Amino acid sequence: MATPVILVLDADPPPRLGRLTGRVRVRHADARTLAAQLPQADVLLVWDFTSDAVRDAWPGGGPRPGWVHTASAGVDRLLCPELAASSTVVTNARGVFELPIAEYVAGLVLAFAKDLPGTLALQREHRWRHRETRRLAGSRAVVVGAGPVGREIMRLLHGLGVRVALVGRTARRSIHGVEDLDRLAAGADWVISAAPLTEATRGMFDARFFGLLQPSAYFVNVGRGQLTVEDDLAEALRRRWIAGAALDVFQHEPLDPSSPLWDVPGLLVSPHMSGDTAGWRDRLGEQFVSMYERWATGESLPNVVDIQRGYVPSRDIPL
Amino acid sequence: MATPVILVLDADPPPRLGRLTGRVRVRHADARTLAAQLPQADVLLVWDFTSDAVRDAWPGGGPRPGWVHTASAGVDRLLCPELAASSTVVTNARGVFELPIAEYVAGLVLAFAKDLPGTLALQREHRWRHRETRRLAGSRAVVVGAGPVGREIMRLLHGLGVRVALVGRTARRSIHGVEDLDRLAAGADWVISAAPLTEATRGMFDARFFGLLQPSAYFVNVGRGQLTVEDDLAEALRRRWIAGAALDVFQHEPLDPSSPLWDVPGLLVSPHMSGDTAGWRDRLGEQFVSMYERWATGESLPNVVDIQRGYVPSRDIPL
Repeated sequence: MATPVILVLDADPPPRLGRLTGRVRVRHADARTLAAQLPQADVLLVWDFTSDAVRDAWPGGGPRPGWVHTASAGVDRLLCPELAASSTVVTNARGVFELPIAEYVAGLVLAFAKDLPGTLALQREHRWRHRETRRLAGSRAVVVGAGPVGREIMRLLHGLGVRVALVGRTARRSIHGVEDLDRLAAGADWVISAAPLTEATRGMFDARFFGLLQPSAYFVNVGRGQLTVEDDLAEALRRRWIAGAALDVFQHEPLDPSSPLWDVPGLLVSPHMSGDTAGWRDRLGEQFVSMYERWATGESLPNVVDIQRGYVPSRDIPL
Repeated sequence: MATPVILVLDADPPPRLGRLTGRVRVRHADARTLAAQLPQADVLLVWDFTSDAVRDAWPGGGPRPGWVHTASAGVDRLLCPELAASSTVVTNARGVFELPIAEYVAGLVLAFAKDLPGTLALQREHRWRHRETRRLAGSRAVVVGAGPVGREIMRLLHGLGVRVALVGRTARRSIHGVEDLDRLAAGADWVISAAPLTEATRGMFDARFFGLLQPSAYFVNVGRGQLTVEDDLAEALRRRWIAGAALDVFQHEPLDPSSPLWDVPGLLVSPHMSGDTAGWRDRLGEQFVSMYERWATGESLPNVVDIQRGYVPSRDIPL
């Protein structure tokens, strides 16, 4: 076998691939050059996981890499019919983001329960105003998305005494099917979205859904921006259908400075950072290198995405 | 036995003592009338636990109630030498505040780890600025105060993967003695104060102590304001000796609008509310009523304060 070519769809800073020195040829592409370089690549590392370049370049002619790895949990940005129809294996970064995202969600939920945004606002005005806060233990959460991220969120919230229902595409063991979502959401204090973006989930959090929730409920989305109909959420908050919300992901990122979302009352806006704890890029690079070691020796790869479904099936992940 | 007299040092709203109707005579006092009424009371319920009235009134002449219950965890405001020398039993509200305070501390720690104050500040400016945050799991906390509050904080943080050292007055089993505090604090990411206010703990968090901490460390005080030398903490934050702090308790409460503490960079100020989840006053009233039932039938009381030490000894509380 010739020295394998790893093509990196680059982002800044680049991945640390020093451990592969002498064993591979690393080439770099950007959105403009990707199409021309794809036919020479054995492996494509989608390091810039915010780019649509793969979806754009893949349908062109010529050989295609047998393995595509994306340094992200979601694969929605790179899937296209031609890739889905191919024999290429697609893997994701499962294992890197779950715990940080779950901690972030726990932090948001506690911040809402204890009205930390209110405390910070009062502090700016030098106002001492005692309020009663919420007890988190015993409250109810619905986590939408039964993949590794959703499961880690469930684990952390459960450790804080929250009664958590996990909702996936289909009911299985201790996971509710999506047909239970409306009923569960109507009784929930916290609705957490950690679902993959697929045609089935796009826009699922809309006016109808927010209308089901309790006025005391909070909504948090750390999945993908397209899961939420942003105008509907803004309207639900303005009309006080729900108590508050936090979005870490948006239809268009970065969120434009002129977006009305920044100023919606009760909405906490963060810049798609829930999974990114210090050292996250190094962990992503190390994960790719160790997956490459398996690939090079013909071992089976972990984290293989079901391209039809658009996510890594988690039926084999123990709860 | 004549119908027992319960004297209530009142606060607004008053305690719900309806369940005792017909069995007791309830009288009400404020700071001005307490001294005159103490001799007729069998039981004193310190419902206004922010008052110094008991300490002021107790030394006067005449009979004294055999039981004083305070609707608070700390007893520092009511203890005086004459009460300490008496045979009066003092009890506190152990069991009501632990979990809410621990949740509040977990919320603060996660808010700091995920830079939630920074996110809210950037949102006000419509600025999308991705940052790397901290992973909470695997970080180190020192909890100062090995009573029920400190233990509950340890339990919740431990559930979030934090390595927690608990520091009490004296070493015992899995609790460190105060002689270990400097060493533990020097390696901690989070220093949490949940200690009682005694002559041994007053002012223990001072410039010398803050100087020991890592520049990345955060300090949180949910114990009593007098544990912290506030000017020293403000200076440590201004000089960036530590990364941030949160105070829920202060030397003087409510904090004056002109206090410089409101504007210290990196300091989160909250109005002594960490333990006060919705329904807390009702829980305090119910606790007193059920303790009264025991007292009236001659059973031993729970939550008895060691008046010499100034807190409920926790040697018998399982870790």
